[in-house]
Amino acid sequence: MFNVQIHVRLRPSILDPQGKAVLQAIQSSGEEMVQEVRMGKLIEVQMKGNSVQEVEEKAKQLADQLLANPVMEDYEIFVKEMAL
Amino acid sequence: MFNVQIHVRLRPSILDPQGKAVLQAIQSSGEEMVQEVRMGKLIEVQMKGNSVQEVEEKAKQLADQLLANPVMEDYEIFVKEMAL
Repeated sequence: MFNVQIHVRLRPSILDPQGKAVLQAIQSSGEEMVQEVRMGKLIEVQMKGNSVQEVEEKAKQLADQLLANPVMEDYEIFVKEMAL
Repeated sequence: MFNVQIHVRLRPSILDPQGKAVLQAIQSSGEEMVQEVRMGKLIEVQMKGNSVQEVEEKAKQLADQLLANPVMEDYEIFVKEMAL
């Protein structure tokens, strides 16, 4: 069994109103350390498979077809085999 | 400058209707590898700071106060110093 993390984020060129709103909420409290906030999706999937490559390929297919909007979003895939 | 990733996820005991909906959409296409799906938030923050510890402490404070719901959500913080 494998644990897969799929990080889905808006492309850098795409405006992130949610991130802007969080940034304003933070800065309105006088907070000066925070410069930028970007909100994305953390999708965690448990999958059966015969190898990391096979699971990675399937996760890529799911991200392309269902989990990420190809027009506006990029994604990264992280696969870890679960200890038995 | 530091890049901070905050992974916010529902506690395992909390039902995840969004994850269930995505799982059903995947399995309805006959897909058998995927066993479970959990949806969470990927929050990426750029912060100024003097050390990893200082930035980590501030990120923890932001997560506790603003970014994660203490009743239903857990979070993890990952801090990386940006190359100059």
